[in-house]
Amino acid sequence: MRFGVLGTGTVGTTIATKLVGLGHEVTVGARQAGNEKAAAWAASAGDNARHGSFSDTAAFGEVVVSATNGGHAVAALRAAGGDNLSGKLLIDVTNPLDFSAGFPPTLAVCNTDSLGEQIQRAFPAARVVKTLNTVNAFVMVNPSLIPGGSSIFLSGNDTDAKQETAGILREFGWSDNDIVDLGDITTARGPEMLVPLWLRLFGVFGQVPFGIRVVRGK
Amino acid sequence: MRFGVLGTGTVGTTIATKLVGLGHEVTVGARQAGNEKAAAWAASAGDNARHGSFSDTAAFGEVVVSATNGGHAVAALRAAGGDNLSGKLLIDVTNPLDFSAGFPPTLAVCNTDSLGEQIQRAFPAARVVKTLNTVNAFVMVNPSLIPGGSSIFLSGNDTDAKQETAGILREFGWSDNDIVDLGDITTARGPEMLVPLWLRLFGVFGQVPFGIRVVRGK
Repeated sequence: MRFGVLGTGTVGTTIATKLVGLGHEVTVGARQAGNEKAAAWAASAGDNARHGSFSDTAAFGEVVVSATNGGHAVAALRAAGGDNLSGKLLIDVTNPLDFSAGFPPTLAVCNTDSLGEQIQRAFPAARVVKTLNTVNAFVMVNPSLIPGGSSIFLSGNDTDAKQETAGILREFGWSDNDIVDLGDITTARGPEMLVPLWLRLFGVFGQVPFGIRVVRGK
Repeated sequence: MRFGVLGTGTVGTTIATKLVGLGHEVTVGARQAGNEKAAAWAASAGDNARHGSFSDTAAFGEVVVSATNGGHAVAALRAAGGDNLSGKLLIDVTNPLDFSAGFPPTLAVCNTDSLGEQIQRAFPAARVVKTLNTVNAFVMVNPSLIPGGSSIFLSGNDTDAKQETAGILREFGWSDNDIVDLGDITTARGPEMLVPLWLRLFGVFGQVPFGIRVVRGK
């Protein structure tokens, strides 16, 4: 399958590398075609790796992954072009982090709205699924880093889009038992609002990978 | 030990009943002395159970538990009286839920502040510890309802107050392995902001008790 991954940071390139390793064709996109990081990634990631502008990338992908800095996510998607997203599965892994007051960041949107919803509203013809934003990039593509497993959430209005996303998550190593479908895209508020807890746990645990598991009684 | 529990709802009376069962003396407090629910609880809960006004209750407790509706928590504590809280461990289990737009509720405060912080600011001489707000009342006092265990968080500025709280949590059945000290009272934002996810999981799981476990890799 062809994937377009928007974003050249750790999250974007880690996901892109995993997708190439799984045999998919991947373009990594940046604001400007010829971006150094995107080019370096494509040069090292094998024959199925390409790079381009946000627009090239979204046009290339049958599935598009939004993996830029959350503060730029909607702008990056506008640059990618609504027509290039129309009808496509758009997997949103971003967090609406606001670093303007330093670390830890606050959320630029929360409580009564979410970045996932903002993206769905801005691109109504895209089939937006929010997922993976609650773990670090290495856990995203290798959930076995956390023995015992963490939970991973799906939020989206389109049931087929969530099933396609679950299929990709399974390729990444997530089990059906890990995947929790929370409901429509408004439920993205929950996983996005996990970030403040995640950041404080990061303060306690440091670089050790960790996740959140939902555990149930009877 | 003497506990004053503010709040006559399920959370307040469930905690109060557990504390009596553990051999503590407990007063349950309401806005008005002679409150029917508080009186009914005290009448059925044994010799160590009393009831009274918020002020009576806080004066009685060596430890005070804030377990009212979150929207009324600060007002209830004002009625309890700052002098009655001064120097005491004040365990805050409330959530700042705003039901004004229906269900699911949003948060009345979040992101850049928390109800835990509001309470600490309003009562600077109290030793506020935020905990237990991330599970339902029955799990609070019986963590074994969730086989495998969920995590429970501590936020507070006073290290001794957190250790005292951890001791009470151990009496409730929480293990040291379950208890995560997040840091100062500003870290209460994280557990309070878990609530939107909790509410959506409640939508998925219904009445089955559940919790969130922090799982770590290496």
